[in-house]
Amino acid sequence: MKTIRVDLQERSYPIIIGSEVLKRAGRILAGAGFSTPPVIITNNVVWRTHGSIMRAAVEEMFGPAGVILIGDGERFKNHRTLLKIYDGLFRARADRRSWILAFGGGVVGDVAGFAAATFMRGIPYANVPSTLLAQVDSSIGGKVGINLARGKNLVGAFHQPSAVLSDTGVLRTLPARELASGLFEVVKCGAIRSPGLLDYIERRHQEISGCRPAALQHIILEASRIKAEVVSGDEREKELRMILNYGHTVGHALEAATSYRRYRHGEAVGWGMVAAAGFASELGMLSIDEARRLVSIIHRVEVLPALSGIRFEAVWRALTNDKKFRAGDIRMVLLSRLGAARIVSKIEPAHLRHFLRRFLNAGGRLD
Amino acid sequence: MKTIRVDLQERSYPIIIGSEVLKRAGRILAGAGFSTPPVIITNNVVWRTHGSIMRAAVEEMFGPAGVILIGDGERFKNHRTLLKIYDGLFRARADRRSWILAFGGGVVGDVAGFAAATFMRGIPYANVPSTLLAQVDSSIGGKVGINLARGKNLVGAFHQPSAVLSDTGVLRTLPARELASGLFEVVKCGAIRSPGLLDYIERRHQEISGCRPAALQHIILEASRIKAEVVSGDEREKELRMILNYGHTVGHALEAATSYRRYRHGEAVGWGMVAAAGFASELGMLSIDEARRLVSIIHRVEVLPALSGIRFEAVWRALTNDKKFRAGDIRMVLLSRLGAARIVSKIEPAHLRHFLRRFLNAGGRLD
Repeated sequence: MKTIRVDLQERSYPIIIGSEVLKRAGRILAGAGFSTPPVIITNNVVWRTHGSIMRAAVEEMFGPAGVILIGDGERFKNHRTLLKIYDGLFRARADRRSWILAFGGGVVGDVAGFAAATFMRGIPYANVPSTLLAQVDSSIGGKVGINLARGKNLVGAFHQPSAVLSDTGVLRTLPARELASGLFEVVKCGAIRSPGLLDYIERRHQEISGCRPAALQHIILEASRIKAEVVSGDEREKELRMILNYGHTVGHALEAATSYRRYRHGEAVGWGMVAAAGFASELGMLSIDEARRLVSIIHRVEVLPALSGIRFEAVWRALTNDKKFRAGDIRMVLLSRLGAARIVSKIEPAHLRHFLRRFLNAGGRLD
Repeated sequence: MKTIRVDLQERSYPIIIGSEVLKRAGRILAGAGFSTPPVIITNNVVWRTHGSIMRAAVEEMFGPAGVILIGDGERFKNHRTLLKIYDGLFRARADRRSWILAFGGGVVGDVAGFAAATFMRGIPYANVPSTLLAQVDSSIGGKVGINLARGKNLVGAFHQPSAVLSDTGVLRTLPARELASGLFEVVKCGAIRSPGLLDYIERRHQEISGCRPAALQHIILEASRIKAEVVSGDEREKELRMILNYGHTVGHALEAATSYRRYRHGEAVGWGMVAAAGFASELGMLSIDEARRLVSIIHRVEVLPALSGIRFEAVWRALTNDKKFRAGDIRMVLLSRLGAARIVSKIEPAHLRHFLRRFLNAGGRLD
């Protein structure tokens, strides 16, 4: 087991990564300072697959724990699920000294974390992410929230967990496409901060997609370390933390333009990184060789669902509707080389528009 | 105009109190650092009475501002109103650089403050409380939230405003009973921290209930100063801040046992303080003379709605159901003298129960 620390003064917390983390969850959580039984929030699928191990681990340390089951999938990340959780907490006789154990993918972590942020004005929570995407991305940094009909993540809070437990073994039960989706966020971490991580993914791709524990542990550790460093430097996303949005400007727009059906989040970010690399190279910021190398790593992770048939205007509308763009100043995270990102402001809208139209028409191939 | 500072490091903010605060709201808010038009959240009644002054003051400084109207009354402090506010913010094209101006009583401040705490993970807000109760109590300290069907204030956050503007003139339009309700919280501030404030209320009660600006300004200033000091010492209610709950243990129970219909909040706190003074004197903590003096000040504020016909068991059930009591250790804020409060833990339930039953049977008279 390896430990990384997210350094945020009195809100600091450990991320524990390894192949037997789930089995030892009780002891690890006791070590993180908990002493009473949690209320576990999870989804049907995760609980069916891993519930007995989690329950045994938690109950041997803390005694009987209540469980609140929510639906599996992004469409449950809403205020109705939130009300259901509040009600479940009340039934479990939770009070302001209680704590929540979130066990599931990004949706469970986000909505359970937001319930923790707001139940009786805030109670602690720990997060045991069950997908690679959640392990390397949403579980770290305290961004929690729900979607509204108007858009995603419009309501939320910054509420740091007390501990994050990432078990590599849990990932073995993930569908390949779900694993790949998480891997794109790992590629992103490499792209913005670590050429070494990009090298590793290039060389060890077989071991990673085969879920070899040592390979998974390495990439989760590196991606978590990078995310932890960035979050420690800018908890509330005033500036630095924005670099974690690399690939997300176009990625979010592709997701929205296809009604969140064609791409998994990571896949959309994959295409978003391809577009951002192409645009940076067109701006003369990034060499075309480095852009091509990043693109080849992305395509090696997975054959991305095609861009064909997506209307350019729908993508552009979604992009300019993005909450980050509404104030008028178009900013984008771009690479100056592999491993170094910068926030570029005052992007010329006409230029970006022109580039993106060509990019879509070319099916995502860079010239 | 007078200014008090709530000292919370980077979350510090001023409370501005005076008779022409509303008219000067634009300039005051610009001085507090705002530079764009707010989205104003208010209720029908307040907006009908004071909307034109507020709109003029805000728009002369910032230009056209959006207005979101919510219903008047505690029953609107719920998630439906919250969703309506999120929707209104979206229609007003609010983004993470927007800010909210809450203008109304405690319900508006609590729900608008919670919307500010959670919209796009938190935007700033300023509070212009329109009742005495909100001016001296709920507007200060950053406690925001909504009620659930299961109970009051079960969902919320700590989100400090950027400024609080208390206009004494606005209070002239309040019904006498509403003014008295706020005055009980002022009495509470005196009881826990300031014999001088109790003296002032005793001597100047006519001027206060006649809404003389100088008298109102004095009590709002003193009560705000006390609340600001206590909150500065303990933002998240770990210990000290609990003394602000003086009179609230029995007060909340009386409200709940009468389905929030018989008493205004301040009136219930009035009875709660009478009960707490009697209990402290029975415990030998507070002299009977001091207890009687506090009780006489309370009864001078207003003839409290009677205690007759309230079932003792309903009060006791509500009291032991209170979220503060659920962990088993019964704690109460009690006075050791007028102006000095302490949190007393390990209250003997049987003793409190016995005292309260007698207290109710005696119609709230102390022996």
